[in-house]
Amino acid sequence: MTESTGTLLLHVDDNVAILTEPAVAGSRPLGFGEPLKTPVARGHKIARVAIPAGQHIYKFGQIIGFASQPIAAGEHIHTHNCAFGEHDRDYRIGADLEKAKAAIPVVEPAHFMGYRRANGQAGTRNFIAICATVNCSATVIRRAADEVNRSGILDRYPNVDGVAAFAHGTGCAISVTGPGFDNLQRVLWGYATHPNVAAAVFVGLGCETMQIARMRALYGDHDDSRFFSLTIQETGGTTQTVRRIVDHIHEILPIVNEAKREPIPASELKLALQCGGSDGFSGITANPALGVASDLLVGLGGTVVLSETPEIYGAEQLLLRRAASKEVADKLIERITWWENYCRINDGSMDNNPSPGNKLGGLTTILEKSLGAAAKAGSTPMTDVLLYGEKITGPGFVFMDTPGYDPVAATGQIAGGAQLVCFTTGRGSAFGSKPAPTIKLSTSSRLYNEMHDDMDINCGDIITEGVSLEAKGREILDHVLATASGQKTKSELLGLGDNEFVPWQVGAVM
Amino acid sequence: MTESTGTLLLHVDDNVAILTEPAVAGSRPLGFGEPLKTPVARGHKIARVAIPAGQHIYKFGQIIGFASQPIAAGEHIHTHNCAFGEHDRDYRIGADLEKAKAAIPVVEPAHFMGYRRANGQAGTRNFIAICATVNCSATVIRRAADEVNRSGILDRYPNVDGVAAFAHGTGCAISVTGPGFDNLQRVLWGYATHPNVAAAVFVGLGCETMQIARMRALYGDHDDSRFFSLTIQETGGTTQTVRRIVDHIHEILPIVNEAKREPIPASELKLALQCGGSDGFSGITANPALGVASDLLVGLGGTVVLSETPEIYGAEQLLLRRAASKEVADKLIERITWWENYCRINDGSMDNNPSPGNKLGGLTTILEKSLGAAAKAGSTPMTDVLLYGEKITGPGFVFMDTPGYDPVAATGQIAGGAQLVCFTTGRGSAFGSKPAPTIKLSTSSRLYNEMHDDMDINCGDIITEGVSLEAKGREILDHVLATASGQKTKSELLGLGDNEFVPWQVGAVM
Ligand SMILES: [Ca+2]
Ligand SMILES: [Ca+2]
Ligand SMILES: [Ca+2]
Ligand SMILES: [Ca+2]
Ligand SMILES: [Ca+2]
Repeated sequence: MTESTGTLLLHVDDNVAILTEPAVAGSRPLGFGEPLKTPVARGHKIARVAIPAGQHIYKFGQIIGFASQPIAAGEHIHTHNCAFGEHDRDYRIGADLEKAKAAIPVVEPAHFMGYRRANGQAGTRNFIAICATVNCSATVIRRAADEVNRSGILDRYPNVDGVAAFAHGTGCAISVTGPGFDNLQRVLWGYATHPNVAAAVFVGLGCETMQIARMRALYGDHDDSRFFSLTIQETGGTTQTVRRIVDHIHEILPIVNEAKREPIPASELKLALQCGGSDGFSGITANPALGVASDLLVGLGGTVVLSETPEIYGAEQLLLRRAASKEVADKLIERITWWENYCRINDGSMDNNPSPGNKLGGLTTILEKSLGAAAKAGSTPMTDVLLYGEKITGPGFVFMDTPGYDPVAATGQIAGGAQLVCFTTGRGSAFGSKPAPTIKLSTSSRLYNEMHDDMDINCGDIITEGVSLEAKGREILDHVLATASGQKTKSELLGLGDNEFVPWQVGAVM
Repeated sequence: MTESTGTLLLHVDDNVAILTEPAVAGSRPLGFGEPLKTPVARGHKIARVAIPAGQHIYKFGQIIGFASQPIAAGEHIHTHNCAFGEHDRDYRIGADLEKAKAAIPVVEPAHFMGYRRANGQAGTRNFIAICATVNCSATVIRRAADEVNRSGILDRYPNVDGVAAFAHGTGCAISVTGPGFDNLQRVLWGYATHPNVAAAVFVGLGCETMQIARMRALYGDHDDSRFFSLTIQETGGTTQTVRRIVDHIHEILPIVNEAKREPIPASELKLALQCGGSDGFSGITANPALGVASDLLVGLGGTVVLSETPEIYGAEQLLLRRAASKEVADKLIERITWWENYCRINDGSMDNNPSPGNKLGGLTTILEKSLGAAAKAGSTPMTDVLLYGEKITGPGFVFMDTPGYDPVAATGQIAGGAQLVCFTTGRGSAFGSKPAPTIKLSTSSRLYNEMHDDMDINCGDIITEGVSLEAKGREILDHVLATASGQKTKSELLGLGDNEFVPWQVGAVM
């Protein structure tokens, strides 16, 4: 909601508004309060009300710091009068839980047209998946998928979205005990059992570390009609293995094609939230608009999955304040500790304290910076914290531990069972995914126009056209429901999603 | 050379022979010496001469331990009479250098028909390479390569081997200072400047960590006709970027097609040595036969590149004994130390002490186990030690630090400039590579028959037909020269090599 020309309110609970245009000294961008003492750049914050010293400053409906001196309505808020004390890093688990519960909107029930699977899951697409357990079978699965997809045979099976080949660079010469192995195993199993997948084929070389039989034994495999597996060594080489996969797919296509879309409550949707190539607009247009959509989906009984742990680092205490239970909070704290060690031993850094460039852009504290990313998830209680690729049960807003790197993060979310991805981008992204499609949201109208073939939704009109965050959030939700019902995204039309399957590699490659 | 029915001599300097068939108690497999006191299994060692206590035991022409008691000719040698003392782990740099120099055979000069590049390099293939700097451009480069390769246009350019797309899962959300970044940068630049590549296109998203401009500035870029680069963000999205790459390739195809094969001395060959899916025959058939070929190529003035540091761990002191200089030795010691730390912080293990299963198969010491892998490199001096993907200068036997994992190891070797790969396999591999082709050598006749479409050379006939290692080594060298001159390998005929490009990821994914 534009308060006046050139300002934006990101959340009804906020005591700051954001300048969407530069303001000159002496002007009053809100139309009331103190005139500005100095020129203030776009992206900076203006006090909407008088804020006594010591009171919290709210942006995205979340605390970003406190007033280090009394602040008058209309005044510029930045490092000179807003601070973030070490004591604010204390973990006050559940302190904001009631406020978060109150943020769940009451919404009319909604449905999408999806695929009801035999095990009760709800899919938004109907793929056959071929999963390589190891890089050694990458070419074989890609060749088999290509052969089916290009043969024209799929024209006879209109309810089949295609054959997706999930190849990767690992699967052998890794420790069988450790997070790297566990990540890959969860991802492979998660893709094979994904609600958007009707049938799966596992293909190994034969002697790799990631053994198909071990994985099937671990997870239990009670549906032989859904799974098929083979190895190149047992099948007698490349050519015969491709032949055997293609023959199997020809056999199952008529069965997979029997799936029909039917009305399914929106409460069964699990929506993955992503950002990549962020810019100065990410935190004020696309991310908070997606946050509105997230709250609406949670209001419908659905699930939204925030991830990208390095992006929320420094603001984890704010997520903990809305944790649904101590158990949920402890899981997030354990992950944060894990990351601190992961970075320490790898000479990496999670130090996202606002850089000089961030500060010029109007970001005052590390909380504010990380909350720009977290804004995608809205304001409702955090109901669960998941390991990378772990099965998402929901409902509500859940957090999955992933890196920020787009393909790795989205691969984990999809492995967990997300049937759709919403991906905000400022600098521009050509990302796409299978078997769950990705909807891309541009943070600016400039980007939307420049990469029109790749962008699904323009959030730049929040600034250029004065569209409200509420209206944009509703538009995003409608787009999500239409996509869930079969409407193709830009990245689906472009055929993306096979090459963007990138399981998170952790640990030594031996 | 078969000494008698059922035994094999791996190197003329060896004082042991290997049983290729099980031997019963009381038999004399060599036809002379002490009868065996117990039954002895295939793969075990028999003394060819009397060995006094304290004397070294030689296999592959290398020390594998010493006699812990006097050993009679004909006697079984194993853990009861052969030991490996901690004092043998001392680094005696250059102690065997003169012996290694004497192992360089005098060979008649040989040539292959290759491509002479403008910068003087010699290629064995003539590819156009499209390299993604980041996963975000993976689909774009694969789509562009597919479009050209499938269009039929290459029929008009018979001297062009094709358009190869090198995509991967990293390139962003990594530290810009550290081995992970350096590895990827060396690999991308090494592929783009590979002697088998006539022209290269770099494609980025635009905002990734691995910046094209930075890489070009670091390495120097004085040949604009050879390089072309673009980003998806600047070009306006997926569709337009694919279009722009394809248009560029259409422009350069007539120029790339002008390359003609001409006679080039074999001394300019750099041959990468690999093994994957090893079995009990690897160390007694394919690896020592490849070692004979390696010595022959070194005799011709060429270069062979041994790698897979975890596979030679525990035998590094034997490589140090034939190091050409202290500087070369120090580089290997530094890499061994790096690996010990890499494994320690990642909870990995390089502990390849012979397992109970290894011992049942006849492997007595850790040296012997690791030397089975190192046997591929023959017996000549170690003239250099390289970092992963570092430019190989040669000549002679050089070591490049890589993991053992096949696609990662071969990617490093090819990035260093190897124009061919020889890959031994026992359990069977479907590996292939671009722009340098891979020749696959089976360790057994059984495997050769079972995976006939994938195997180039059968080394199993060393046992089944009594072919000598010398004859097999010469056959391998001839096959290498024919392949270098344009003869297609099995994996080339099958079209492998794009999906097997896997740069070594080290460090945190953020
Ligand atoms: Ca269809
Ligand atoms: Ca990000
Ligand atoms: Ca991301
Ligand atoms: Ca190996
Ligand atoms: Ca290997």
